Amino acid sequence: MQPYEMTLTAAADAIRQRRLSPVELVDSVLARIERVEPRLGAFVTVTAQRARRAAREAEREIAAGHHRGPLHGIPMGLKDLIDVAGEATTASSAVRAGHLAGADSTVHARLAAAGAVLTGKTHTHEFAYGLTTPQTRNAWHPSRVAGGSSGGSAVAVAAGAATFALGTDTGGSIRVPAALNGVVGLKPTYGLVPRHGVTSLSWSLDHVGPLTRRVRDAALVLAVLAGPDPRDPASLPGAYSTGPAQWAEAKSESEPDLTGVRVGVPRTYYFDRVDPEVEAAVRRAIGRLEELGAVTTEVDIPMTRYIQATQWGLMVPEATAYHERTLRAVPDLYQADVRVLLEAGELMPAGDYLRAQRARTLMRREWSRMLADVDVVAAPAVPVTAVPAGQETVTWADGTVESVSDAYVRLSAPANITGVPALSLPVGHDRAGMPIGMQLLGRPLGEAVVLRVGDAYERSQPVRTPVSPVDATAQAAPAA
Amino acid sequence: MQPYEMTLTAAADAIRQRRLSPVELVDSVLARIERVEPRLGAFVTVTAQRARRAAREAEREIAAGHHRGPLHGIPMGLKDLIDVAGEATTASSAVRAGHLAGADSTVHARLAAAGAVLTGKTHTHEFAYGLTTPQTRNAWHPSRVAGGSSGGSAVAVAAGAATFALGTDTGGSIRVPAALNGVVGLKPTYGLVPRHGVTSLSWSLDHVGPLTRRVRDAALVLAVLAGPDPRDPASLPGAYSTGPAQWAEAKSESEPDLTGVRVGVPRTYYFDRVDPEVEAAVRRAIGRLEELGAVTTEVDIPMTRYIQATQWGLMVPEATAYHERTLRAVPDLYQADVRVLLEAGELMPAGDYLRAQRARTLMRREWSRMLADVDVVAAPAVPVTAVPAGQETVTWADGTVESVSDAYVRLSAPANITGVPALSLPVGHDRAGMPIGMQLLGRPLGEAVVLRVGDAYERSQPVRTPVSPVDATAQAAPAA
Repeated sequence: MQPYEMTLTAAADAIRQRRLSPVELVDSVLARIERVEPRLGAFVTVTAQRARRAAREAEREIAAGHHRGPLHGIPMGLKDLIDVAGEATTASSAVRAGHLAGADSTVHARLAAAGAVLTGKTHTHEFAYGLTTPQTRNAWHPSRVAGGSSGGSAVAVAAGAATFALGTDTGGSIRVPAALNGVVGLKPTYGLVPRHGVTSLSWSLDHVGPLTRRVRDAALVLAVLAGPDPRDPASLPGAYSTGPAQWAEAKSESEPDLTGVRVGVPRTYYFDRVDPEVEAAVRRAIGRLEELGAVTTEVDIPMTRYIQATQWGLMVPEATAYHERTLRAVPDLYQADVRVLLEAGELMPAGDYLRAQRARTLMRREWSRMLADVDVVAAPAVPVTAVPAGQETVTWADGTVESVSDAYVRLSAPANITGVPALSLPVGHDRAGMPIGMQLLGRPLGEAVVLRVGDAYERSQPVRTPVSPVDATAQAAPAA
Repeated sequence: MQPYEMTLTAAADAIRQRRLSPVELVDSVLARIERVEPRLGAFVTVTAQRARRAAREAEREIAAGHHRGPLHGIPMGLKDLIDVAGEATTASSAVRAGHLAGADSTVHARLAAAGAVLTGKTHTHEFAYGLTTPQTRNAWHPSRVAGGSSGGSAVAVAAGAATFALGTDTGGSIRVPAALNGVVGLKPTYGLVPRHGVTSLSWSLDHVGPLTRRVRDAALVLAVLAGPDPRDPASLPGAYSTGPAQWAEAKSESEPDLTGVRVGVPRTYYFDRVDPEVEAAVRRAIGRLEELGAVTTEVDIPMTRYIQATQWGLMVPEATAYHERTLRAVPDLYQADVRVLLEAGELMPAGDYLRAQRARTLMRREWSRMLADVDVVAAPAVPVTAVPAGQETVTWADGTVESVSDAYVRLSAPANITGVPALSLPVGHDRAGMPIGMQLLGRPLGEAVVLRVGDAYERSQPVRTPVSPVDATAQAAPAA
């Protein structure tokens, strides 16, 4: 196995035990980027020189006996909405031409302090305002969409072009590309990970979180990201000081055991208009949770007919407010799809926004009631796997037609509106070879149990291909 | 001294020591209401029968050795926005004709459990949407405004028609009438006192709090009101469990001493366009704080040019959202002034509301920085004392003309926008005999220090007339 194929956990162990040098690992990942990036288009910028310097520094520190922890010397990609001092934050947009970040985002400052090594900034749907990432190709099939908006991060992790990455999630933008590319994506509890220095799409829905190849890897990254920062007005003060220790314990090597864990299976919403192969794979995975000792119980998802209007009612005016000045100054620099959405926001009355706010307040309350009875809810992450690029709609068995964007956001939005943590993890592939994702939703600040359930499932399965077969797919796509 | 003239603290001590029966006290207050109410117009409803029954019950309980605490057997008025099961909540509006509250508000449930006795529901500017209370006359002069919107509560307390009362404060509606009627009014930290069952004006600015004749009385009421309730989405969870004990300690009888307390005196905003008699009285009171050991330091109030736009930008659309259905169904039942404001809210774009939200976020941060250096800020509560009813504008020395409403809200709004606690307490009278109020603003959840400073000031002054001279003013107004 090449170093770029290693999971974060495995690479961290090897580095700690000095079986692997950060320089070898970073070089291996940079070589992988060089090989696969022309086919993937995952990166806006590859920071090779910076990465090699940081890797040497990490190697020296560790050799001198100063090991900073599991992220020390680990190569990472950051979605190009996340400020890194001295690098551009392009948001994959012409609007940001010539940009240079003067200071670190909180998350990069924390990752850098933990010793992680930036190998590149990854592509996003322009300003994160969309559920695809047009610049980037799916890690499993070059003609399929990567999903978005954190498509670059998901594809890089899936293909071994980053050991882990960060994304942002406003309506599913971590979980959707995670599911479509067969990696793990965690949208943490709203307010747990500070967003200072991260370009906003919709501040009341925005979250920052990790994309990794294994669940326990996500726990290791979250432990570094989480914690209060008053520069993000929504940052939660204290209240989860035991979190990181709990999450890291998902690292236990004992037999996976979910005895006593209550898993809610939605009777409504999450299995409506879902591709049968996706549904079958997720139900099989839920069956696996039962075999591991979990008790399943049906739950009714509350207020489902308000989800779409609430998500859009909050997001559209907040996005427009953020872009107010540039939209007036340089409207032509935006992509047409994003510009239309931003201009639509200028026409929205305050009453519509306030109705969405009030609906959210009620939804939070109702979700909190539902989650009193179960530890996690298990559901599909997206209703359909990665569609061919250019496909605009999905036609369901009941004859209804849905835009691809609406379909991809549909099962993700509830966790953005309510702020509950939501993990997407791979649970197989469809007949076309495209990955399928299961979503585990937990209580606010319930990351420990969500990660524990995901880790137990994952460890009970045969080990997956370490990275996606980009080299193979370049020649021949998997059989349909 | 008649029982109706007693402060809450004095009445509570007398009841606890069985020198006074709740029945005597309630009867005395009811008789006072009967005598002065025709001249004041403070009450929507007087609940005499209910009050006498509750007083007898309190008398029995206390005689049997079950004394519930300092509010047991104490008569109170509640602003008629606050639900009491089995009573109407009219909001002083024809829109609420035939209303009957099915359940208690959280604050009434807590007060009733503490043994307080409801003697009546008090008038508000219709739905609290205004800085006067047209139905109610000032407790010190029948032709002057009561101030609002909690005018009925302030006047009742000032005149001895209630031993304490509750008001609500969205832009000054507790502090303005408190200042204009010479009583104490406390707007607590946003989220400290739950608003479940209280008619909303603007949910992101609304607060419930006490009106009393002495500062220590306000501490006793706050101790009963404060504490989380998840039915108010803004209710703060935990975090102030030691609060009530601290507030009650303001009851100490030791010599007032403010050694080491840092008092900020605004260099900007709070003394601009303020009546010279008001300014002089407040500066005298600040001098008194220094004599008590406090150290004063000048502070610059941040972002003052955003205050008015932020207050209105938040309040107008939130109020309209709350009234959406009734405004369409029964527009003619609203008073003209309130209807115009509600209709204006329908025209506001979401972008304006979001700009106000963002300005608030920045103001909170800047205020938090300012309050890092001082324990409290001392300032006028209102820039001008109670004006004659019907007067619509105030002309300042610099020649500018301001509406009476704008003047009354101007110095109160910052504490609503930022959520910091703010206490108004009497610091003398102008030459026309009208009361002057000083405002003490503290850090979020800094009620203990705000109350301590107010109590020390108050105890260092000669004892005031126990209640306003309503009987005298009926014949002859104080000399102008």
